[in-house]
Amino acid sequence: MEKTGVNINDIKQAHERIKKYIRHTPILRESNMDDFVGCELYLKPEMLQITGAFKLRGALSKTLLLSKEELEKGIITSSSGNHAQACAYAGRMLNVPVTVIVPDDTPHIKVKNARDMGANVILWNRLYAERWKKVKQEVEEHGYTIVHGYEDYYVMAGQGTIALEIMEDLNDVETVLVPIGGGGLISGIATAIKETNPKIRVIGVQAAASCAYYQSRKEGKKVSMVSEDTLADGITCGSTGDNPYPIIEKYVDDIVVVKEQSIKDAVKLIANKAKLIAEPTSAVVIAALMDGLIDVRKDEKVCAVLTSGNYDIDKLGKIYNDEEVEGIRLKGEK
Amino acid sequence: MEKTGVNINDIKQAHERIKKYIRHTPILRESNMDDFVGCELYLKPEMLQITGAFKLRGALSKTLLLSKEELEKGIITSSSGNHAQACAYAGRMLNVPVTVIVPDDTPHIKVKNARDMGANVILWNRLYAERWKKVKQEVEEHGYTIVHGYEDYYVMAGQGTIALEIMEDLNDVETVLVPIGGGGLISGIATAIKETNPKIRVIGVQAAASCAYYQSRKEGKKVSMVSEDTLADGITCGSTGDNPYPIIEKYVDDIVVVKEQSIKDAVKLIANKAKLIAEPTSAVVIAALMDGLIDVRKDEKVCAVLTSGNYDIDKLGKIYNDEEVEGIRLKGEK
Repeated sequence: MEKTGVNINDIKQAHERIKKYIRHTPILRESNMDDFVGCELYLKPEMLQITGAFKLRGALSKTLLLSKEELEKGIITSSSGNHAQACAYAGRMLNVPVTVIVPDDTPHIKVKNARDMGANVILWNRLYAERWKKVKQEVEEHGYTIVHGYEDYYVMAGQGTIALEIMEDLNDVETVLVPIGGGGLISGIATAIKETNPKIRVIGVQAAASCAYYQSRKEGKKVSMVSEDTLADGITCGSTGDNPYPIIEKYVDDIVVVKEQSIKDAVKLIANKAKLIAEPTSAVVIAALMDGLIDVRKDEKVCAVLTSGNYDIDKLGKIYNDEEVEGIRLKGEK
Repeated sequence: MEKTGVNINDIKQAHERIKKYIRHTPILRESNMDDFVGCELYLKPEMLQITGAFKLRGALSKTLLLSKEELEKGIITSSSGNHAQACAYAGRMLNVPVTVIVPDDTPHIKVKNARDMGANVILWNRLYAERWKKVKQEVEEHGYTIVHGYEDYYVMAGQGTIALEIMEDLNDVETVLVPIGGGGLISGIATAIKETNPKIRVIGVQAAASCAYYQSRKEGKKVSMVSEDTLADGITCGSTGDNPYPIIEKYVDDIVVVKEQSIKDAVKLIANKAKLIAEPTSAVVIAALMDGLIDVRKDEKVCAVLTSGNYDIDKLGKIYNDEEVEGIRLKGEK
């Protein structure tokens, strides 16, 4: 079941597979945010998705395709965050053993969440390459199937189902904004959109502190960078994904980057106006609009994908109170 | 158009009038909260309603019935909170002048919100009776129509539309939990439910600090009480409403009261698990379940109505961080 590439039909099939297990999240027209973002704003609030993030779509898209033998052996991934939780949930739902390799400095609460859902959590090296070496060892030993958070085409197809729902519920949408971390989400969304209606713009947003896709586009080639700390810890991006990169270069109209202070302001605006808990990772798309980084008309129908809401509540309280969030230095910013 | 009483047909008609202007908010199944609340929990998140609260349903239900002459003269109400904002929104939508009499110690932000929506805001005495005297003076002078937040039967009918949506989306719901302040919301909801399926339980929740309906039921007669400060400032209730009281006594199965610390815990749980901004007023229904005040089976389908999400974000940050909220003394509690 090695798959190369993803297209609109893959995404439609993924939707058929997963739709009875996920929430079709609503599209929320947020007219009281228009003045802050300069356009006609719609939100796709995936923090209301089961597990608090869109990631369940991809995890289920992949896992539901596995054979009986594969399911019996189990699945494995490496992630410290929302993808780990999504795999744990999918595994519990399908009665499949789940192993997650997480960085050894992962917050206790995230380890606990995954363990509470029955996952076998292994604390390992912080470095991406080291963790994936461990994943491969485990695969050799136990025959697990890897569910990669953004390199896997079936996972991308699952994430792309968000775009099908947006186009169904808001058929005259003009621009869709998507956070970019590993690149799996925007690969799925851009494929679904551009292979349905190429006139709809797809724009990616990264944190300036960690933005390899932005840098790569600027330099016209795949480059890596040393990430700085960012509040948007779900989309740190020191290097581009092998499989998402060409899709993003083919289909994504533009990539912009936002500063930490803007991310904070956006988290607060979303709480104040839309009454939603956005983790900073989610808020980058609103930050980009607030800072005028995206060229939009006042009457342009813009849909911002809010990816997730899983964030330590005490840190969120600090953001709401304009206090420093521990461990995050806002370099070169107030 | 003086109306006495409200019944299921009034509520169905109200739904026909308002449904194209409001959001049919989703029902969210929150399985990850079940262990905290001891039942199968569903949320009706009215903080996602336009204006951030259910109140728009009632304000529109009433205003859409007014004659051309009445609309030209305008509407008036007294409220410091969500009902004022709902009337301002309804007025702007229908191009109707709106006057709101607010207590002179109303937070600046709420005055500003109503003014930004075009309402004529008059700061007046803190006392309920004084403010309604002023309302009546204004009515005599200008011929405004009063849109009372909970005494008006058309307003009650509008709020009752929430129950129609709950029963449509979750037809095997067994118990519905509703915060009680003035009593308009639960009057509408209980009427819709009991006149459709009397087996569904309707339970009201008040803040222990301010709970005239609870006290009145206990004493078997309408009583008033001196309210203490409560975080749940949207449901302070020093005395029962004249029109809601008999409806609540007829249709509401039980009324329970919750402590301030429990309200805080519930605000945090809703943020953590459901990713929603609940103002403390909303959270009382979850607090009641967390404290085991409502007798529920583990497999009982319970729908909690979360009324609203309009709360100063810095106060919310303090609640998330377990800090004191200024101006709120938690008497007799830690």
